[in-house]
Amino acid sequence: MFYDAVKNDHGFPNDPFKAIVAPRPVGWISTLSRDGIANLAPFSYFNAFSQAPHYVAFGIGPPKDTLHNIEATREFAVNMATWDLREQMNATSAHVGPEVDEFELAGLEKAPCRLIAPPRVAASPVCLECRLHQVIPLPDDRGQAEDHMVIGRVIGIYIDDRFIKEGRVDTAGMKPIARLGYSEYATVTDAWRMRRPG
Amino acid sequence: MFYDAVKNDHGFPNDPFKAIVAPRPVGWISTLSRDGIANLAPFSYFNAFSQAPHYVAFGIGPPKDTLHNIEATREFAVNMATWDLREQMNATSAHVGPEVDEFELAGLEKAPCRLIAPPRVAASPVCLECRLHQVIPLPDDRGQAEDHMVIGRVIGIYIDDRFIKEGRVDTAGMKPIARLGYSEYATVTDAWRMRRPG
Repeated sequence: MFYDAVKNDHGFPNDPFKAIVAPRPVGWISTLSRDGIANLAPFSYFNAFSQAPHYVAFGIGPPKDTLHNIEATREFAVNMATWDLREQMNATSAHVGPEVDEFELAGLEKAPCRLIAPPRVAASPVCLECRLHQVIPLPDDRGQAEDHMVIGRVIGIYIDDRFIKEGRVDTAGMKPIARLGYSEYATVTDAWRMRRPG
Repeated sequence: MFYDAVKNDHGFPNDPFKAIVAPRPVGWISTLSRDGIANLAPFSYFNAFSQAPHYVAFGIGPPKDTLHNIEATREFAVNMATWDLREQMNATSAHVGPEVDEFELAGLEKAPCRLIAPPRVAASPVCLECRLHQVIPLPDDRGQAEDHMVIGRVIGIYIDDRFIKEGRVDTAGMKPIARLGYSEYATVTDAWRMRRPG
């Protein structure tokens, strides 16, 4: 089938878009409000974009606490969402007010970051400490933008030593989860190898 | 462990960054040069960023044919890389000159897109037809940018009917592959479900 993505006339009960751009890594993003209240929420419109220097970006919909906090403080931390933390990650996706600390809501312990003020998820095996680089509006056809892309420069990186073996990170050992469409997720538990040609 | 990501003083033989932002979906991107030569290459710094309207973005390193073609024609197609097409995808990652058509190099059949000029990978179950929205430089500390983020507006979507079941896309059935670090990949063959709270 083919459909016009601007009209979005796919004719299905649910938009199939998220089911065809997959698997999407989950950026589980922690921030602090100007008042010092921690926020934590998962974003699957997330990825790295360059490695020298290291940049990451994520997409965010109509004004959310995460964006308000980043615009106010210019800092955010990206934690890795794993199979072992799936229930807690899901709990942090609840729509709650800015006065709610999602670490507390989900029963997650905080650990301090080294170079930025927001806390990280202590139990997560990875944390990318980021400074805001740019917020890019993603406009609709009338030029209105309810969605934005947030680009961050990674300035500090935490990796749980348990997943470092002979100088390499055991990604599959961390069991990262990824988002598919609808209510679906996938878990990485096995890796296979393929070398680039020439 | 913790390290300074700007100095990148991790001390390992290989940068662990790609192994900790994972699994990354593969945008297998086809373009046309101004002279009409097709180009096809995989990018794992790729994801969707919003769904109403639909935007995707990918990161690209020091000047590559893909970026030259998109700047010249303002169009690109994103094909899905799957387990069945893994060898062909890998073949298209070879460093070859702009005169080489990677579809031919990898023995891949082309199919026409509907709304843009570049061809799609006929055997791939998904194609997102995109118009260039913006190219964002990702500067280093001296303000020099060798890396860029390319943002595209999705205007047309192709989905292979074989993977649509009762109005829903069977993502795991397509067996999409994702990039981890080093030479590692993962394949999605199983999905599990978790509903958002409240």
